[in-house]
Amino acid sequence: MKANEIRQNKATKQSVIYASARRKRPGDLFRKSIKRMTLPDLDKNCPFCPGNEHMLPSIILEKQNRDSTQWLTRVVPNKFPALISEGKLNRYSEGIYIAMEGYGLHEVVIESPYHNKQIADMSHEEVTAVVETYHRRYVELMSEHKNMMTIIFRNHGMLAGTSLRHPHSQIIVTGFVPHYIRWREEEAQQYHDEWGRCVYCDILDFEMKEQRRVILGNNSFITFVPFAAEVPFEIWIMPKRHEADFGSVTDEEKEDLSFVLRDCLFRLNKKLHDPDYNYVINTAARFRAGEPQLHWYLQIRPRLTTQAGFEIGSGININPSIPENDAGFLREENR
Amino acid sequence: MKANEIRQNKATKQSVIYASARRKRPGDLFRKSIKRMTLPDLDKNCPFCPGNEHMLPSIILEKQNRDSTQWLTRVVPNKFPALISEGKLNRYSEGIYIAMEGYGLHEVVIESPYHNKQIADMSHEEVTAVVETYHRRYVELMSEHKNMMTIIFRNHGMLAGTSLRHPHSQIIVTGFVPHYIRWREEEAQQYHDEWGRCVYCDILDFEMKEQRRVILGNNSFITFVPFAAEVPFEIWIMPKRHEADFGSVTDEEKEDLSFVLRDCLFRLNKKLHDPDYNYVINTAARFRAGEPQLHWYLQIRPRLTTQAGFEIGSGININPSIPENDAGFLREENR
Repeated sequence: MKANEIRQNKATKQSVIYASARRKRPGDLFRKSIKRMTLPDLDKNCPFCPGNEHMLPSIILEKQNRDSTQWLTRVVPNKFPALISEGKLNRYSEGIYIAMEGYGLHEVVIESPYHNKQIADMSHEEVTAVVETYHRRYVELMSEHKNMMTIIFRNHGMLAGTSLRHPHSQIIVTGFVPHYIRWREEEAQQYHDEWGRCVYCDILDFEMKEQRRVILGNNSFITFVPFAAEVPFEIWIMPKRHEADFGSVTDEEKEDLSFVLRDCLFRLNKKLHDPDYNYVINTAARFRAGEPQLHWYLQIRPRLTTQAGFEIGSGININPSIPENDAGFLREENR
Repeated sequence: MKANEIRQNKATKQSVIYASARRKRPGDLFRKSIKRMTLPDLDKNCPFCPGNEHMLPSIILEKQNRDSTQWLTRVVPNKFPALISEGKLNRYSEGIYIAMEGYGLHEVVIESPYHNKQIADMSHEEVTAVVETYHRRYVELMSEHKNMMTIIFRNHGMLAGTSLRHPHSQIIVTGFVPHYIRWREEEAQQYHDEWGRCVYCDILDFEMKEQRRVILGNNSFITFVPFAAEVPFEIWIMPKRHEADFGSVTDEEKEDLSFVLRDCLFRLNKKLHDPDYNYVINTAARFRAGEPQLHWYLQIRPRLTTQAGFEIGSGININPSIPENDAGFLREENR
């Protein structure tokens, strides 16, 4: 890679500017990570901790351990939801503009009864419970016909937008397909029309052959830093089997996903000193789940840099890191 | 407006979720603003302060006051540029991917000799000098044929990505048109093909008639909170005269822009206790500057909320504020 290079995301056509010289700037990448407080097992003021069930609006789903002596995960309504289940789907005019009621669902996946147990520190059984909870709730939510899109995501740390420390993910369901998702679909559609192949499958095959950006692989997944990573240490966890819909993962894939997810978060934690990050499961909207051009994947974005005015105006990220180096750095860590 | 509503940006078709109940969340909007340190007039370690010219790579442009006794603004190369002038424009293959050298320019506009003088505190002459510097440099940079896009932006405060406190803006020139800009162009193009009108002119006319979201107007501009504001207290400064290209502003418009720009920043400063913010001048790419569907404007985005996993996955912002209320709140302040 050249010291200054611009790379194109093959799937979305978005460009990313690489400027490794900017890592010498005052305020280097790693200095931004803030030391975490040591948290107790149980916090009596935390609504997600056992014993505080009265602080929860309700419990939608609970997953127990094998001998049913303790819960592993819970799904609860978000107390301050972005969208509400009472809304209607019809659009209305506001003068020249279009609006609709804020229909949708906003849930929280409590990942552990322990206040201080991050995914990186969980047992395989515990991580698998989280992944199975994502999947079960995803299938249930998408079975409702008016739910057009289900987005599962995790915010870790203040810079990533978290307000509660107890390990949790979130699920937001929308009754419409976001414009951005349509745009991603269309790019993949054009590629498929042109080449007769899924662009994500082509990326997958190429990355497995190249290996330079790969962190780990198992039977069902590879984890890699994408060629046009938008931020330092961005990671994609991609299923080897072509499948647009996260709802279609098999039991074996859930096990394998749990393994690589924990592995990625463990590496980030160790090598970058517990950075703030977001992850999101990118999957197909309703009606597109059976189409051949899409491929679901889990995308992890550490929050080590700040998107500023240029990013807002251009839609282009400036990444001071080199994807091949980032992957090499993360590969060094072995559990 | 309903308590939960989804609004569509008429120009880009992007949706925004409004959830005013989320302002009752732990960690309310205003608490995030961090008290600024009182800064001295002059900082002997600041490369942008007078007397420290040896710390600058060079001075590209300098604007002096009327009687030439002092400089008002300077343009200097960014010491840690995202893009460099030596790059070539040809694309090359990296396996299945496309990349190019990081050609471009990255400059800094030093807005004042005073280390502590923000735009909100400047005299009209001083703000006008900043706007004239933007404009002059914009025209000079776009006169170079290989420069496809010039983006002028300002990052204010840590959360907005600033590393230096001395008041400054930045200019980045790219040798290609960002995909996001093309997408914005295409939406406006479709609207123009359909209605025979500029979508931004329609927004402008409607907002002037409605007044509810307008903060201020003068001969050449109105300032308003857009109907589908992506973040709390987002402001658009829009020229009344239809014009795609920032390079075409008249002398009178420069004066009027200086007035409303200072007014907006003054109101944000007073009413929200000097929030971090970014602003960016959205203008046309080369070759599109003469087309009828685009309209340049300056967009201010305070950094009071954090974009998290949902925003990354969906491209949709969750805004806990109501645009009509935000505009009313900002209107209250009179200088």
